[in-house]
Amino acid sequence: MSGRRTKRTRVTRVDADGVGRTREDVLAVEEPLEIRINTKPFSVTMRTPGDDFDLVAGFLVSEGVLWSADQLAAMRYCAGDDEAGQQTFNVIDAQLSADTAPPDPSLDRHVYTSSSCGICGTASIDAVRKSTHFGDVESEGYDRAVVVRLPDSLRDRQKVFDSTGGVHAAGLFTAEGEMLCLREDVGRHNAVDKVVGWALREGRLPLRGTMLQVSGRMSFELVQKADMAGIPVLSAVSAPSSLAVEHAVAAGISLIGFNRDGQFNVYA
Amino acid sequence: MSGRRTKRTRVTRVDADGVGRTREDVLAVEEPLEIRINTKPFSVTMRTPGDDFDLVAGFLVSEGVLWSADQLAAMRYCAGDDEAGQQTFNVIDAQLSADTAPPDPSLDRHVYTSSSCGICGTASIDAVRKSTHFGDVESEGYDRAVVVRLPDSLRDRQKVFDSTGGVHAAGLFTAEGEMLCLREDVGRHNAVDKVVGWALREGRLPLRGTMLQVSGRMSFELVQKADMAGIPVLSAVSAPSSLAVEHAVAAGISLIGFNRDGQFNVYA
Repeated sequence: MSGRRTKRTRVTRVDADGVGRTREDVLAVEEPLEIRINTKPFSVTMRTPGDDFDLVAGFLVSEGVLWSADQLAAMRYCAGDDEAGQQTFNVIDAQLSADTAPPDPSLDRHVYTSSSCGICGTASIDAVRKSTHFGDVESEGYDRAVVVRLPDSLRDRQKVFDSTGGVHAAGLFTAEGEMLCLREDVGRHNAVDKVVGWALREGRLPLRGTMLQVSGRMSFELVQKADMAGIPVLSAVSAPSSLAVEHAVAAGISLIGFNRDGQFNVYA
Repeated sequence: MSGRRTKRTRVTRVDADGVGRTREDVLAVEEPLEIRINTKPFSVTMRTPGDDFDLVAGFLVSEGVLWSADQLAAMRYCAGDDEAGQQTFNVIDAQLSADTAPPDPSLDRHVYTSSSCGICGTASIDAVRKSTHFGDVESEGYDRAVVVRLPDSLRDRQKVFDSTGGVHAAGLFTAEGEMLCLREDVGRHNAVDKVVGWALREGRLPLRGTMLQVSGRMSFELVQKADMAGIPVLSAVSAPSSLAVEHAVAAGISLIGFNRDGQFNVYA
């Protein structure tokens, strides 16, 4: 699948003297993925192809539809031909187990999710906050020396970023700093969903005793996704938003920001 | 409104020696905004408060609902009390003019949009691409010397970023590099919507002869928003996605990336 994650393009590089040179450049691919549940359209998200089954599984965890691997009976690519009749691999159907309730159809979840979008599909402000199936995390401690190494560990393993400079990454680590899973995407929320989906499919939820490092900023939606997956420690290279901090405090999640150059801020 | 855009918080700064010091820090505020059209709930977006009327107007341009100021009869904050019965200023009702069609109710647009999310609300991949009311832009030239100055012009005027390090900015410039409008938000798509909404309300659509500079990467959704507003030149500090480039080429938009240190890449 790696050939679908980046794309070569012709680009004109204009230098400081105003001289333009045409050369090849590599872009991160952004394509729509339509997610169906029990054959019914559920959501369309803009994502970087690759780890699509992880993405779908993690998205359904974030949405509160799944919290255990045995609730997911099957996933497969289905219809979705391009103009030439070729399979696009841009439509996935997730079959839930017989005892798993599909999302409430009264929510009318006909949602298009952009590549930078996370939680989608409810009409009122009150419905923005979701509740996790795992209960609040017990605040867990963390080792400062391990935390400061997380951004470099993430960056060292980022393959797509190295070639395009245009994707986000999320990495799941043990409390000792061992990397369990790394996922990349043009959308930061997709990278986190891919990590959570990997964990669901590996039977690892809830993710107690782990730490999640993300490459950029920390928004409310990422804290909510971590909360839904039971992750107790979150670390971002850049700043959190006010609502991210408030949600982390409410959920008992440790929230670390500006984790760079051996220093960091503890917000929650 | 500026007091609502940032929020003070207590933070523990852990330095490279492992010493923690508690101090005050400033966060970018992220709060939900419920958008109603003719009193009916339409969408909820996570945004940084401020320029809310611009945000709503620009969002409706991006969604293809509006393309002229006279289609917007009125906007007002309405119901939305917090626990203490205080007005939250987090619900806005947009009244369309009598001859403006509200969005197709068959789309069931009950959509929650995250702070990093752009275009939301349609079920199928085919509906992702929207068509502008203004026709394709005629490719417009640009002055290299003006383009290389845009990122610094944007950054110099960014007030919230200076205090929090956590928000995106979008700036609209004339072809000569004069700044017309700058807007900031935790969500990059919101910053662009706020700029477009300002332009709609000022009667400036379509935005021929202008350039839009954004602080981060360039995704498909931002190109689409620029296309809907008729902006012919887009510049980003960082990388575009593959679909951003493809859409810019199709729409006749000039797309510039990695605009920094006096150099840039031309992708479209």
